Amino acid sequence: MELIIVKIGGNIINDDAALTSFLNDFSQIQEPKILIHGGGKSATALASRLGIETMMQEGRRITDAETLKVVTMVYAGLINKNIVAQLQSLSCNAIGLCGADANLIPAHKRTHAEIDYGCVGDVIEDDIPSTTWMELLKNTIPVIAPITHDGKGQLLNTNADSIASAIAIALSKEFKVKLIYCFEKKGVLADAENEDSLISELSAEKYIQLKQDKKIINGMIPKLDNAFEALLKGVQQIRIGHATEILKMIKHDKHIGTKVSV
Amino acid sequence: MELIIVKIGGNIINDDAALTSFLNDFSQIQEPKILIHGGGKSATALASRLGIETMMQEGRRITDAETLKVVTMVYAGLINKNIVAQLQSLSCNAIGLCGADANLIPAHKRTHAEIDYGCVGDVIEDDIPSTTWMELLKNTIPVIAPITHDGKGQLLNTNADSIASAIAIALSKEFKVKLIYCFEKKGVLADAENEDSLISELSAEKYIQLKQDKKIINGMIPKLDNAFEALLKGVQQIRIGHATEILKMIKHDKHIGTKVSV
Repeated sequence: MELIIVKIGGNIINDDAALTSFLNDFSQIQEPKILIHGGGKSATALASRLGIETMMQEGRRITDAETLKVVTMVYAGLINKNIVAQLQSLSCNAIGLCGADANLIPAHKRTHAEIDYGCVGDVIEDDIPSTTWMELLKNTIPVIAPITHDGKGQLLNTNADSIASAIAIALSKEFKVKLIYCFEKKGVLADAENEDSLISELSAEKYIQLKQDKKIINGMIPKLDNAFEALLKGVQQIRIGHATEILKMIKHDKHIGTKVSV
Repeated sequence: MELIIVKIGGNIINDDAALTSFLNDFSQIQEPKILIHGGGKSATALASRLGIETMMQEGRRITDAETLKVVTMVYAGLINKNIVAQLQSLSCNAIGLCGADANLIPAHKRTHAEIDYGCVGDVIEDDIPSTTWMELLKNTIPVIAPITHDGKGQLLNTNADSIASAIAIALSKEFKVKLIYCFEKKGVLADAENEDSLISELSAEKYIQLKQDKKIINGMIPKLDNAFEALLKGVQQIRIGHATEILKMIKHDKHIGTKVSV
């Protein structure tokens, strides 16, 4: 059986019209499906209103106790529940959850020799409870906020791209998983400034070359690292593309988005 | 089969030590159980930090668009997920949800001849999907934030006491329901200032008298109105008492809390 896992991020979450259009398309997917969302820009905006400084390190948010409160409120509260309410209005039986709920996404606090990331979590992929996920998928559409926990009472801020690939890997034993990363660009671009430079198919070999040439940079690198890892660990297909083209990506239109292939 | 429904509110939510102690007790309840929480004081504090004025009318929060964002963040995000993470650390398989999730608590926007409450919802008790609740209760402990939705994409701020009694009524067809309201007082007091004036058993007749005599006032009135309605509609037992005494209330210790009886 097929399972569609969609990660929605970037500027789509903050653009009401684009989000509504995306959710309308998402609600039309007939296969079992999971939606994972980010929300970093809203979190940064709330932190700023509260006078909390946002510090990033290699694209990851340094998460002290106050920042953890902000991201928990914004991701698991505001964004998650608004997406759920919209999907419910589209007859899509969404259920909004984070990784602490039913222990869906076990994680551990990140340790790093030089940088203290604070309350940031890395998913323990092997501990994802696939039976619980299968139960959830019977009658509901899980909508996942990128907050996890360590099982000892501590919530952890966790990268949504990494959560998407970890869940895709864990569930690939039970389903043929298609993992789709949606954002505000057409896909992986050979030139980040030029929307016409879409790479339709990206092999591991080509990816290494483009990284060396500094054509692929910043947040796209962890996203693609996650994608290639997921392919190697059993996920069947991965696409990266614009949120408005999600339905076409699922139908494997050759001219839409970037197909990631090993 | 028995089902224990606990509403936790008041100052307990904002007192880390009291909340941890309460959750430890709650995790030890052996029967199927549901936890419903408030969080009004944290919401008022965040609103204040954001420069959003809090307006109350007859104990209910006037909820404009900005205030709705605040309560959604605080109730469904911050408080809900922290409770879930703590319960998970106590081997209690908690799942944090609001009324929009899986359409657990359908509601409609409150209409009032004179007061515009804004995005405030009243539960549509008859539409609560008991089958979905029964499924949830098989393997998880639902932890419910007092946010509902209208099924048309609109989230609604909803009184947690009312949610507790509505769920208790809906599930009393399937279970013998004990509904327990926990807060920072010993129970219903004949004199709100005197903790020694506990009313051990409160009949409808006595309640009407105490209301007439202005001995029962403010937020206790809607709580008790909900309680008596729930008893009339099939809920088996209702107790109101201190959060530290929840286990004793479940065991029907005669000297603990207030037993509400028709």
